Amino acid sequence: MIDRLLDDLAGIPSTTVRTLVRQKSRDFFWYSPVLNAQLRDKTAEAVLMPRDEADVIRIAAACVRHRVPITARGSGTGNYGQAVPLHGGIVIDMTAMDAIEWQRPGMVRVGPGRKLIDLDRETRPQGWELRMHPSTKRTATIGGFVAGGSGGIGSVTWGGLREPGNVGMARVVTMEETPRVLELRDADAQAVNHAYGTTGLITALEMPLAPAWPWVDLIVAFPDFMDAVRCGHALALSDGIVKKLSAPIAWPIPESFLTIQQHCPAGQAILIVMVADSSLSAFKSLLRQHPAGTITYEKPSDETQGETPLYEYTWNHTTLQMLKRDRGVTYLQALYPAARLQDSVAEMAAMFDGEVMPHLEFIRVGGQVTASGLPVLRYTTEERLREIIAAHREHGVSIADPHTVTLEDGAGHKRVDADQLSFKRMHDPHGLLNPGKMRSF
Amino acid sequence: MIDRLLDDLAGIPSTTVRTLVRQKSRDFFWYSPVLNAQLRDKTAEAVLMPRDEADVIRIAAACVRHRVPITARGSGTGNYGQAVPLHGGIVIDMTAMDAIEWQRPGMVRVGPGRKLIDLDRETRPQGWELRMHPSTKRTATIGGFVAGGSGGIGSVTWGGLREPGNVGMARVVTMEETPRVLELRDADAQAVNHAYGTTGLITALEMPLAPAWPWVDLIVAFPDFMDAVRCGHALALSDGIVKKLSAPIAWPIPESFLTIQQHCPAGQAILIVMVADSSLSAFKSLLRQHPAGTITYEKPSDETQGETPLYEYTWNHTTLQMLKRDRGVTYLQALYPAARLQDSVAEMAAMFDGEVMPHLEFIRVGGQVTASGLPVLRYTTEERLREIIAAHREHGVSIADPHTVTLEDGAGHKRVDADQLSFKRMHDPHGLLNPGKMRSF
Repeated sequence: MIDRLLDDLAGIPSTTVRTLVRQKSRDFFWYSPVLNAQLRDKTAEAVLMPRDEADVIRIAAACVRHRVPITARGSGTGNYGQAVPLHGGIVIDMTAMDAIEWQRPGMVRVGPGRKLIDLDRETRPQGWELRMHPSTKRTATIGGFVAGGSGGIGSVTWGGLREPGNVGMARVVTMEETPRVLELRDADAQAVNHAYGTTGLITALEMPLAPAWPWVDLIVAFPDFMDAVRCGHALALSDGIVKKLSAPIAWPIPESFLTIQQHCPAGQAILIVMVADSSLSAFKSLLRQHPAGTITYEKPSDETQGETPLYEYTWNHTTLQMLKRDRGVTYLQALYPAARLQDSVAEMAAMFDGEVMPHLEFIRVGGQVTASGLPVLRYTTEERLREIIAAHREHGVSIADPHTVTLEDGAGHKRVDADQLSFKRMHDPHGLLNPGKMRSF
Repeated sequence: MIDRLLDDLAGIPSTTVRTLVRQKSRDFFWYSPVLNAQLRDKTAEAVLMPRDEADVIRIAAACVRHRVPITARGSGTGNYGQAVPLHGGIVIDMTAMDAIEWQRPGMVRVGPGRKLIDLDRETRPQGWELRMHPSTKRTATIGGFVAGGSGGIGSVTWGGLREPGNVGMARVVTMEETPRVLELRDADAQAVNHAYGTTGLITALEMPLAPAWPWVDLIVAFPDFMDAVRCGHALALSDGIVKKLSAPIAWPIPESFLTIQQHCPAGQAILIVMVADSSLSAFKSLLRQHPAGTITYEKPSDETQGETPLYEYTWNHTTLQMLKRDRGVTYLQALYPAARLQDSVAEMAAMFDGEVMPHLEFIRVGGQVTASGLPVLRYTTEERLREIIAAHREHGVSIADPHTVTLEDGAGHKRVDADQLSFKRMHDPHGLLNPGKMRSF
């Protein structure tokens, strides 16, 4: 079957070399011991590397003809196994389709395989950058972010990808007998947002841009985690301070931040902040209302090779930094209730003291400031993990379960408003796109 | 007394010509019939027009020496009588001090007398503009805005002037025997924000800037006011849509909008919107979720001479547009409770149907989206006016009373967090700055 498929697709770069195919059949699902057990042996049979949309159309048509599943991937930085083929078939690696078609003030049109860091590198000289990016900006692609992410650094100002205006257009190839090319604009583009490539193959994106402020990275140390939370929350609520990140992190997490250890006092929580340099003075003025805090680090944010911008200690990089020292941890994805945010954070931090280590990332959801968090969890058994998730939910904290491969079970608060199921029924009638990920199909 | 003062101040431009002095002793207090009765005969004895800070220091010292009150003014576009001298003395007209000292990315340093429109004109070529401005942008000065305003067009994104980060620095001359010059940064600058010049004489400001997006003006007509409110609210909550104004206006107010009457269908409410051109498509996508709305006007926002940008129909220009046709109206300043915003607006609109005509301006306060409003009111008696104000307050709507000359009575939700009274006690011990306006002094 695969041989015939590859014959049909002659001329398109591909490989069936087992180690290469296995490598491209993986993502960072191993952060979850549960997913690790489920997914570590899954693999595609071949990897196709389209060079342009015409290649993607040929691949789609051939896969429909031969009824071969397609799992699309960018750099595979996701944590939900979204790039892991559950039912073999092929992986389509989009990283070669990385051209910027055009940039205009406030908008860029780009191939799905463009790395986020390389996208900003091209738009910054004109004064623009992506509104938000995951902590994996250095390696992740824009297509993978839209298809498998939800928000990140920048979401404290702009909200997540699902907020109106945060995805301009997604061009997708459908999986019908004769594949079509659709341009989904604005709300329509939500059909492919966080759908793990189950609803169409993204061949281009128009992404809205933000003014590229010169960012300053700061660490503020606080003896008490809740003081860091209060300060980070006050910053998130300060619409007059231009910011990109406000992330309080509880001790002992910073113990694992080896390269910035001298800026993380033993036993103390830290607040990691990115503010525009023109807002630095205003931030410091705000900080005077939180006198328990001490600035231990202040430097222009630097993403050049060999440097570690502070956002690489936040979002799910926090888990990664801990995993480097201790493979016994995993994480949750929490969204705390906006109406009783600080109380809820304090409550959950006390409930699992020592077992669940909190860090928050303040974000906007539906126009309201709240905190998401990726608390690091000392893993014992899946049963205990399920208990902890249930306890969070019982106490009003939404958990998007990162220990499941399906969109529905993992979505939680990351669910988008689009009717992705109907969209899939129309455009992938044979269910060949990343099968097994959309449970309701 | 004034003669000796003017002798001391020889060389500084001044006038005692009665008609000129009377003219410079007024602002737009006449929007309020109550204030109009109280203030129409108040006047200073002379007007001084300092050319620079040295002049201001000489004036301050001489006024302290002779115990002569000083009322500072810019263009006098305020509505609270803040520029009206209650106890004679001199008016200090700051409009000649209008130089831009420097601009940097995100910040400008400017004299208090600079007109807002002329400030934007200088910063826009570099890609920047003021974060917010009142509807009187064409005539108002930056010093007057900080000393007597609270927010405006832009506050739907940036919040008001009192939000941390929205005033960078205020340089003030004190009213001590030997006047001092203070540079009040960030939170400290709140000592002069909305203090009507009672706490010091502003001689320079550092104002944070926003990226100057190319703005598009739109009118969306809705048969039902509450549909316009719901749509405007949804826009205000959409962090991914770059916007500067979202203002639903109930019929019959638009009947008075003569120059845009063809875009205001009879009997319908309108929603006036400013969005960045790169967010226009996203706004129209959002609008499809509010199908009762019809776009009747769409044009790049144009502030050139002879053009009327749509913001000149919002905030307190709404009242002005009605007053042009009908001198029997006045207005309130309302802040609706964020937690039950739409219900509260509907409740108050129904309670005074025909007597109080609502329009809202969505804003951010403390990081939260809510709506302020300057409902236009058919005036009968002061007693009825007080009844209507009381009814609003009983129903949870904060009213900043625009029918009083004192800071305390008029502050309401516009009160800033600074201890302006202590500041005044230290820096104006003889109470010579705009006496009568700070009641608690």
